[in-house]
Amino acid sequence: MLVRMDLARIIIREQADSQVIVLRERGGDRHFPILIGLNEAIAIDRRIRGAQPPRPLTHDLMAKIIDSLDAELEKVVVNDLRDHTFYATLVIRRNGEVITVDSRPSDAIALGVANDTAIFVEEQVLRAVCSPEEPDADD
Amino acid sequence: MLVRMDLARIIIREQADSQVIVLRERGGDRHFPILIGLNEAIAIDRRIRGAQPPRPLTHDLMAKIIDSLDAELEKVVVNDLRDHTFYATLVIRRNGEVITVDSRPSDAIALGVANDTAIFVEEQVLRAVCSPEEPDADD
Repeated sequence: MLVRMDLARIIIREQADSQVIVLRERGGDRHFPILIGLNEAIAIDRRIRGAQPPRPLTHDLMAKIIDSLDAELEKVVVNDLRDHTFYATLVIRRNGEVITVDSRPSDAIALGVANDTAIFVEEQVLRAVCSPEEPDADD
Repeated sequence: MLVRMDLARIIIREQADSQVIVLRERGGDRHFPILIGLNEAIAIDRRIRGAQPPRPLTHDLMAKIIDSLDAELEKVVVNDLRDHTFYATLVIRRNGEVITVDSRPSDAIALGVANDTAIFVEEQVLRAVCSPEEPDADD
């Protein structure tokens, strides 16, 4: 079962090894952090603010490629957590056909966030990560 | 007219503001540097060496998206130089159809280099950049 999430926070501390995004259950209370890289954190922050750089940056280019190939990013699904690492899938639609591509959650969210693409998490992942024993996990 | 180029050098100095790639005319002597960002330089270096990270990184994901949408990056063309900034185009082919997408040269080369995608430069750009007056130009 997929649970709809919102990107609740993004915490950038350039001196830290990892940056943090927090996903929160829509209409619920469960939330969890994902540790991500600085580049991806900056890309997410920039794209969520709609900042237009003078040149299209990497995730802007990726979005343009999908658009140019007549496809659309329908949703992002965080579908696994193994060895303290999250896994995600891009669900791309083209002419009614659904294509899935494995991705780090950070790239998936950086790609989707500019268009407010829906983010989902598998219920079992949410349950695992919201358990008291689970330490912070990586992108 | 398009001139075939090779990626002759990549110079990464993490403390510097910009990194450098050098494109050299195939079978010729003309060459020029492009100043690029650190992330893109690291991506180019990693992908040219065929290094496999534990997770697909951003340009790997971009390549997978193109592949999943039944398309292929046919060539990269550095087609303009304005105000000390280079412009490039991805030439993507799908079912005989040609789709072009504007890109920074660094992203284009990071994307193409893993498959040895052909890099071209417009003759007029090559002439402009190889003139003695032209200072180093950005990505």
